[in-house]
Amino acid sequence: MPRTAETASFQFNHTMIRVKDPKVSIPFYTDIIGMDLLSEKNMGDFTLYFLAFDHDGSYASMTQEQKDKARFSREGVLELTHNHGTESDANFQGYSSGNSDPGRGFGHIAVTVDDVEKACERFEKLGVAFKKKPSDGKMRHIAFILDPDGYWIEIVPRVMQL
Amino acid sequence: MPRTAETASFQFNHTMIRVKDPKVSIPFYTDIIGMDLLSEKNMGDFTLYFLAFDHDGSYASMTQEQKDKARFSREGVLELTHNHGTESDANFQGYSSGNSDPGRGFGHIAVTVDDVEKACERFEKLGVAFKKKPSDGKMRHIAFILDPDGYWIEIVPRVMQL
Repeated sequence: MPRTAETASFQFNHTMIRVKDPKVSIPFYTDIIGMDLLSEKNMGDFTLYFLAFDHDGSYASMTQEQKDKARFSREGVLELTHNHGTESDANFQGYSSGNSDPGRGFGHIAVTVDDVEKACERFEKLGVAFKKKPSDGKMRHIAFILDPDGYWIEIVPRVMQL
Repeated sequence: MPRTAETASFQFNHTMIRVKDPKVSIPFYTDIIGMDLLSEKNMGDFTLYFLAFDHDGSYASMTQEQKDKARFSREGVLELTHNHGTESDANFQGYSSGNSDPGRGFGHIAVTVDDVEKACERFEKLGVAFKKKPSDGKMRHIAFILDPDGYWIEIVPRVMQL
């Protein structure tokens, strides 16, 4: 049950991270991670990209306007913000992953998969960088890959034995 | 349609942020935001808390073991990491919201609501800090509140007119 009537309509809709170059990040999150690019919005100095897994295939038959509206009515959306120019700025220092000082705070996003070993074999074949392979360290049932900006993505099994 | 057979099982399960004091953050995310505390796991030096909206009321009838397992089989989960001791460490500097240098990268999480004005009136009554009230700036249809660690939470309407 929703905890209160006032919050009954609430959903954890999206998580926003900044990316240096959408020409690198969009193919990573679509071709490698498997999300769909649902919507993009040029805001002048920056562009927002909204991505999500199309589990039920509903996006295939939607118009772009329907997709633009639908992006706030579900959970599990990833918003990428591209501040124009970072992709070609030689002085751009890159973004913080949030996992070291200064800048510690945000940790990672996580993708659930049926088979972590199999998913990671595919990531390896596709040249994805790993922070932690399943065989590294003590927690053999999970992995951490790195997105093009160095953000950590945890790969977790749908049913975890803890 | 899922983009590839290999990624058909994938879900954007959770987002992890570190928090200084769970005794402050858990009541914020449950009582004010309306999520349920689904699972917690003491890992020795740190404890993980998993929260999510219980939209269909399915958690109410679950055992704790069922909830522990269920937390990786859905989207929209928030994971809070508490490194033990930060809550009482006078030298602890706090976490970065990701929105200023050094440490820029992560931007915010977002909660969809039916009525942004009404949700924000309630947040104000409950003493929540705002980064941007609906009446501030040009984007009147959205707001940003701050969680106890200063992370930004965007409040967005389910159907946005852009």
